[in-house]
Amino acid sequence: MTRRTVIRGGLVITAAEETYADVLVEGGTIAALAASDSDCARAWTADRTIDATGKYVIPGGVDGHTHLDLPFGGTSSSDTFETGTRAAAWGGTTTIVDFAVQPRGRALREGLDAWHAKAEGQCAVDYAFHMILSDVNEGVLKEMDLLVGEGVTSFKLFMAYPGVFYSDDGQILRAMQRASGNGGLIMMHAENGIAIDVLVEQALAAGRTDPRHHGEVRKALLEAEATHRAIQLARVAGSPLYVVHVSAQEAVAELAQARTAGLPVFGETCPQYLFLSTDNLAEPGFEGAKYVCSTPLRPREHQAALWRGLRTDALQVVSTDHCPFCFAGQKELGRGDFSKIPNGLPGIENRMDLLHQAVVDGHLTRRRWIEIACAAPARMFGLAPRKGTIAPGADADIVVYDPQARQTLSARTHHMNVDYSAYEGKEITGQAETVLSRGDVVIDRRTFTGRAGHGRYIPRTTCQYLP
Amino acid sequence: MTRRTVIRGGLVITAAEETYADVLVEGGTIAALAASDSDCARAWTADRTIDATGKYVIPGGVDGHTHLDLPFGGTSSSDTFETGTRAAAWGGTTTIVDFAVQPRGRALREGLDAWHAKAEGQCAVDYAFHMILSDVNEGVLKEMDLLVGEGVTSFKLFMAYPGVFYSDDGQILRAMQRASGNGGLIMMHAENGIAIDVLVEQALAAGRTDPRHHGEVRKALLEAEATHRAIQLARVAGSPLYVVHVSAQEAVAELAQARTAGLPVFGETCPQYLFLSTDNLAEPGFEGAKYVCSTPLRPREHQAALWRGLRTDALQVVSTDHCPFCFAGQKELGRGDFSKIPNGLPGIENRMDLLHQAVVDGHLTRRRWIEIACAAPARMFGLAPRKGTIAPGADADIVVYDPQARQTLSARTHHMNVDYSAYEGKEITGQAETVLSRGDVVIDRRTFTGRAGHGRYIPRTTCQYLP
Amino acid sequence: MTRRTVIRGGLVITAAEETYADVLVEGGTIAALAASDSDCARAWTADRTIDATGKYVIPGGVDGHTHLDLPFGGTSSSDTFETGTRAAAWGGTTTIVDFAVQPRGRALREGLDAWHAKAEGQCAVDYAFHMILSDVNEGVLKEMDLLVGEGVTSFKLFMAYPGVFYSDDGQILRAMQRASGNGGLIMMHAENGIAIDVLVEQALAAGRTDPRHHGEVRKALLEAEATHRAIQLARVAGSPLYVVHVSAQEAVAELAQARTAGLPVFGETCPQYLFLSTDNLAEPGFEGAKYVCSTPLRPREHQAALWRGLRTDALQVVSTDHCPFCFAGQKELGRGDFSKIPNGLPGIENRMDLLHQAVVDGHLTRRRWIEIACAAPARMFGLAPRKGTIAPGADADIVVYDPQARQTLSARTHHMNVDYSAYEGKEITGQAETVLSRGDVVIDRRTFTGRAGHGRYIPRTTCQYLP
Amino acid sequence: MTRRTVIRGGLVITAAEETYADVLVEGGTIAALAASDSDCARAWTADRTIDATGKYVIPGGVDGHTHLDLPFGGTSSSDTFETGTRAAAWGGTTTIVDFAVQPRGRALREGLDAWHAKAEGQCAVDYAFHMILSDVNEGVLKEMDLLVGEGVTSFKLFMAYPGVFYSDDGQILRAMQRASGNGGLIMMHAENGIAIDVLVEQALAAGRTDPRHHGEVRKALLEAEATHRAIQLARVAGSPLYVVHVSAQEAVAELAQARTAGLPVFGETCPQYLFLSTDNLAEPGFEGAKYVCSTPLRPREHQAALWRGLRTDALQVVSTDHCPFCFAGQKELGRGDFSKIPNGLPGIENRMDLLHQAVVDGHLTRRRWIEIACAAPARMFGLAPRKGTIAPGADADIVVYDPQARQTLSARTHHMNVDYSAYEGKEITGQAETVLSRGDVVIDRRTFTGRAGHGRYIPRTTCQYLP
Repeated sequence: MTRRTVIRGGLVITAAEETYADVLVEGGTIAALAASDSDCARAWTADRTIDATGKYVIPGGVDGHTHLDLPFGGTSSSDTFETGTRAAAWGGTTTIVDFAVQPRGRALREGLDAWHAKAEGQCAVDYAFHMILSDVNEGVLKEMDLLVGEGVTSFKLFMAYPGVFYSDDGQILRAMQRASGNGGLIMMHAENGIAIDVLVEQALAAGRTDPRHHGEVRKALLEAEATHRAIQLARVAGSPLYVVHVSAQEAVAELAQARTAGLPVFGETCPQYLFLSTDNLAEPGFEGAKYVCSTPLRPREHQAALWRGLRTDALQVVSTDHCPFCFAGQKELGRGDFSKIPNGLPGIENRMDLLHQAVVDGHLTRRRWIEIACAAPARMFGLAPRKGTIAPGADADIVVYDPQARQTLSARTHHMNVDYSAYEGKEITGQAETVLSRGDVVIDRRTFTGRAGHGRYIPRTTCQYLP
Repeated sequence: MTRRTVIRGGLVITAAEETYADVLVEGGTIAALAASDSDCARAWTADRTIDATGKYVIPGGVDGHTHLDLPFGGTSSSDTFETGTRAAAWGGTTTIVDFAVQPRGRALREGLDAWHAKAEGQCAVDYAFHMILSDVNEGVLKEMDLLVGEGVTSFKLFMAYPGVFYSDDGQILRAMQRASGNGGLIMMHAENGIAIDVLVEQALAAGRTDPRHHGEVRKALLEAEATHRAIQLARVAGSPLYVVHVSAQEAVAELAQARTAGLPVFGETCPQYLFLSTDNLAEPGFEGAKYVCSTPLRPREHQAALWRGLRTDALQVVSTDHCPFCFAGQKELGRGDFSKIPNGLPGIENRMDLLHQAVVDGHLTRRRWIEIACAAPARMFGLAPRKGTIAPGADADIVVYDPQARQTLSARTHHMNVDYSAYEGKEITGQAETVLSRGDVVIDRRTFTGRAGHGRYIPRTTCQYLP
Repeated sequence: MTRRTVIRGGLVITAAEETYADVLVEGGTIAALAASDSDCARAWTADRTIDATGKYVIPGGVDGHTHLDLPFGGTSSSDTFETGTRAAAWGGTTTIVDFAVQPRGRALREGLDAWHAKAEGQCAVDYAFHMILSDVNEGVLKEMDLLVGEGVTSFKLFMAYPGVFYSDDGQILRAMQRASGNGGLIMMHAENGIAIDVLVEQALAAGRTDPRHHGEVRKALLEAEATHRAIQLARVAGSPLYVVHVSAQEAVAELAQARTAGLPVFGETCPQYLFLSTDNLAEPGFEGAKYVCSTPLRPREHQAALWRGLRTDALQVVSTDHCPFCFAGQKELGRGDFSKIPNGLPGIENRMDLLHQAVVDGHLTRRRWIEIACAAPARMFGLAPRKGTIAPGADADIVVYDPQARQTLSARTHHMNVDYSAYEGKEITGQAETVLSRGDVVIDRRTFTGRAGHGRYIPRTTCQYLP
Repeated sequence: MTRRTVIRGGLVITAAEETYADVLVEGGTIAALAASDSDCARAWTADRTIDATGKYVIPGGVDGHTHLDLPFGGTSSSDTFETGTRAAAWGGTTTIVDFAVQPRGRALREGLDAWHAKAEGQCAVDYAFHMILSDVNEGVLKEMDLLVGEGVTSFKLFMAYPGVFYSDDGQILRAMQRASGNGGLIMMHAENGIAIDVLVEQALAAGRTDPRHHGEVRKALLEAEATHRAIQLARVAGSPLYVVHVSAQEAVAELAQARTAGLPVFGETCPQYLFLSTDNLAEPGFEGAKYVCSTPLRPREHQAALWRGLRTDALQVVSTDHCPFCFAGQKELGRGDFSKIPNGLPGIENRMDLLHQAVVDGHLTRRRWIEIACAAPARMFGLAPRKGTIAPGADADIVVYDPQARQTLSARTHHMNVDYSAYEGKEITGQAETVLSRGDVVIDRRTFTGRAGHGRYIPRTTCQYLP
């Protein structure tokens, strides 16, 4: 007989419901939910009983945007699949979707194989892959069909980074047309990189080399323009579109307009855009480098538009875009030239907590917290109904969350392999207490009890927001 | 020990999930859901087992807008609480919210008492009340607070029908201010009735007396104008707003804009606006009278905007505005003068099926069907978590729905007390097979097994879409 | 032979052109313009030669919105037709359109006759009349046709001031329908007076009685709402619409949207909204009363939207709404109750200069200055081609304007019959030096040389912006 | 003494006025206008008197967009400066602004010199040059400053035609920044050529080779997208923008939005978009090739948006984009491959008449006709006050226009050097009867009396719509 765990007495929160219910786990999946005060629940016996009284019982987080062990800008992101997924578990995230990268001029397969090799046997929680297209051509278009068939159902393109990841509008249109046929989802880094690179060059030539100039040259208007353009190209191709790391209020407005028109256009933002701003980029010394990412942090006023977008469903998902680089030795590559600062911020461990703080602060309801952090990314990326919810039949990825716990975010205490925290000293109410991944306890009352290799690769179906 | 029912093998559909699960009912509430193939489910025993294999198991419908036994235009709507709620049960609707009417110049209490008297002991399914304010004054404002306290948490105002239900903008503003303080929800009939009455008079004077002129004088622009005005007044008052029976695409646009701006503004439409049009109003003879309601049916082109509004959440709820008048003797009062045709259509029995047909036709997903017909009205009107979903602890209002059944809508076969069907001859795929209300089977494989008096009055909390 | 005047060497500025030209006046009309350096010009002889070297030669101003000798709020505006039109002449305005008022319950004719009696033989410059409808009924609708025929081609309605001038939406619709047929132009005071009066009552009851509360209760949203409503009613009626004294940026947005849609909707603002703000209403003591007018002054931020509206033609006209009340004895009626302060500001003498200052400040081009102050009101109100431009055949209403003159606005030096200036102490660059009305010099190098009775009544054709 | 001409008795129409006035020409310029019935006018004597009784006296047309003798697609446009400007004169156009082309990889100067050589001594009417930038680099940016200094004050860029004229967004941004500094006006061919070329390739590969596919691949959405992008880039650069040959209603909407926002963004459309449609492109045989131009003709429904844009000033100018290719031997190059059809239509002779027809049809007022065809292009391109109006001091470029004349457009009767008419058989009311260029009669009652070489090069100032 399968091993049985029962989680008793908590408030089960999903994207749709809040219920005082006991949760019965048989093996790796959720067998049943029963009202805590029902005869049915009382009759349950189990091998392990977890007391969740006074706690929330929530789905494990789904982080749809991570970059572990990513070579970029002459260095590599500092978290491996081992360290990164372990930190994820600490933070209550039990599934990540990382980006495999097509080597420029080579096959998608080659990139995907490389990422499988990086991840296999290393992960503390489950993982899946998106594919970055860095060179769209006939061969790549054909490979897209194959990848969709084997569970890599989303493809990221860049309107920024000419010479690195950049695709021109023709390549974008072709990839979108292909996705329109094979059910794939096009993910877009929407910034007009061609125009931005002119401004970068002009800024550097004028001696404006500090980190804050990174934010000034990557203008909100140029994010909004690219967002608009991507939407129009998707309309021409008849394909859906998912815009990653939206940070500018003008870009949110473009997404809202598309949604109102009934277009299958989706948007993601990240905690850094919700909690940080250009004030951080302007911190004295070279401290601002810690906050260099693209799209960049925006002036504080943009945050209200992002929160509103999350509430009104102009934005559907909050991912981390976790792409950590140590300050020492990595971020420092860009001293005297902001364009050489590796782009990226750590956050895989902090997302669930920061968003719970948003609940405390009144920005979000509890259900919406779970929706944007668990349920929506699971559906968006074809991981539902296994991931993102607490329902009979789903994977037993469950977090017992203490909404009263107090913690202070800090590099001294976090588990990510990076020498600074973007939120150093920030006080948070709420913390993952116990975390189950497919029925196994990987965090047990703030002790890591998981292991590298527990996490499995999860092939994905296509986006479940489409008809 | 409480009586136990188990519903086995169906696809449980809620606003959020689709799960193959068995549902255990203990007494009047849902005790548990378990994966159909789990040890847990297999171990369940029950007094009654319902086989739902190949069927959907969905929450009972919540119809947030009905008018049973309503005096209007010199006659009364033809369904009593007995006949109307029985027809609701036949159609898979297990909760209705009807409108108690303040007698002009009298207390709210008097109207509410009268409606309680009409309903008590008569209903086949559960019921609640909104309150129509026909005369806003200081006393009424104070009574609003009391009514919120006893479960009547929504108040309908009319920008139409001068001399009958009409409130002027000052009265509206005062009621909104009060609602802003006491948590009440203002529901609005949004048509510029002052302007419309001028057009009515001019049409009649010019001999344009046929039913189709009802549609022509009640212009879409005048619905949109009133919708816009109501939104602005709600902004001034700081109150939420729920616009009833939205039919014009221009009104949907006003709602969409308000939602994008983050305002607490909600919209309802009705099946008649989704499936019927001015073509029906123009049917030869006096047939068009069958389709006279306000807001009126619109040209067919408006339907796409309504469907899109339902998909994009510009509209949140589909209610019936069930207000039946027999053709013979009632609708006929308006021969030769469309303004004398009693306003209203029957539909309480057809809503769940028509919306399932919309799923079949590709307008909606299954989950969105359940959301707009069950979950959203339950939340909107403070009936959740008891109503509108299938979850541990909720009332066992459950429909076993056969998605393959074929039926033809007709006055010959329907159970509403009205001599015509607005959808006569329309073929539908899908039908409620078995219906439970608080654990009691009221429809058993297409036989009525309920009774007048089973249905209970449900006091409501305030709107759950507000922070 | 007719008397000839030639104005030599100035820069002639019209709405369309800037030309160094000599202007030949024969009798009361402009006979010719010739390039200053042409043989033709050199050959001209004249009875009187005015040297305009270094000056502008511009059309006399047309002030489309004045209230001379208006009974309002238990008193009367303090300028008579004699004092008001003389002040107009001092300020370079040579035509005014004043508002005759229908006495409530009486014929339009009665009001028009009364206003003719007030004005006849009193005016220093030419004048015409709009008609205020204070009581729309069948008789009034018929009279509208007659008045259009005799040169009163515009009709003002009020959505504010219930019980005084207020028309309901049905009356408005009827008047618009009539105007749609007879070529009349509906002018609208667009504020939701019904809602505002609720806020007024609440403010007074709460002891918020100071002048600044006048601005707070008359909310920008309620101006915008009424503007939107008036536009929709005009669409239903198929009539043009002219919105008077627009002050809120949200109202400008409504007008801009209507214009983009190609609707015949026009907007006017006034100098007080461009140069003053709620800061003035909040001046200490009872000083704020000097700035009480409706629509009210708005927060300073609205000014940018008004200037932009004037540049982009969302607003077409700047009039004064000149309606002066002395501080002593008149404004003071509202001490302790802002709602009793007579509504209105003086400005008939200052408009041309304040708008020239806007040219100096970079808000407007010189041609746009002449357009909004002379040409557009002349066309809007059917006074072109006689008024508003400098062209052969036009009335010789001409101002020699010194763009370098410096003046300080003050009640000590102005010629309006009112004991304060709304712009006390404001320094202006530019001043009318010499003013001709139909060929007669009425201001001669800053000396008044005109006379009461020179000004004639000008019957108007219909709005010339319509096809 | 200079030669004097007087034009008597006509209705002088400018963008701003309609006046019965006699016009006195001294030498090449307009000396004076006098009211026809004035003593002053009667006193005039002249060497030549033209009787304009019953006629309009209008400014000579200014065609701001022509391509004479342009090498394109392996051939050259079929009108030389001699034949093209003669046809212009026949059609009442007395100034053209043609496009000099920078040879790819060479200096602007080289292109400009080449175009001067083509034009010098050949032209029947006055001419000026814009400059096409086909290769933006540091040298080109510096040359832009020089060209502005010598009267070439506008610079055209292409977002279409990769590999030929295409500039990427970085080049566009740089050129805009330069224009922002030197007062130049950026003119944009706004189509997303990169995306369009993908669709072209796909269409040809699929055997969709007929002319109508030219219209289908160059999608309206891709014109609107590029228009939006150009506007955003101009905002980043702080420069004005003039979008050429706007044809899609979605692009008009982008321009309208920018104008409402107060941005210095301007739009031009052409007669072919106002009078022709995709119906013409779909004409049987290879006839559709006659109508191949880019942006392409659109479905008939777009015309209403263009007319509305012209009325509401979302569009300011109507030019021809005259770029004729003979059907025989030139258009035929694209048989079997629509992408090889030379892009362009004849029209230089027809513009004034087609737009007068629009007056007759009720699309435009007479003044707006003159504004969009004469005054606005003159101001836009720095030709005012010499060109585009009838005012003292302006060049005596005058058309005596017969508003009653009837003509049938046809290749058999037109004077353009091209073997077909895009408007073959179209009946027009109105015709230029007599045309003066700088005082010389070049068309005398429908006889050409001009000569090659009369026309002079006109250096231009910068755009006069900017502060």
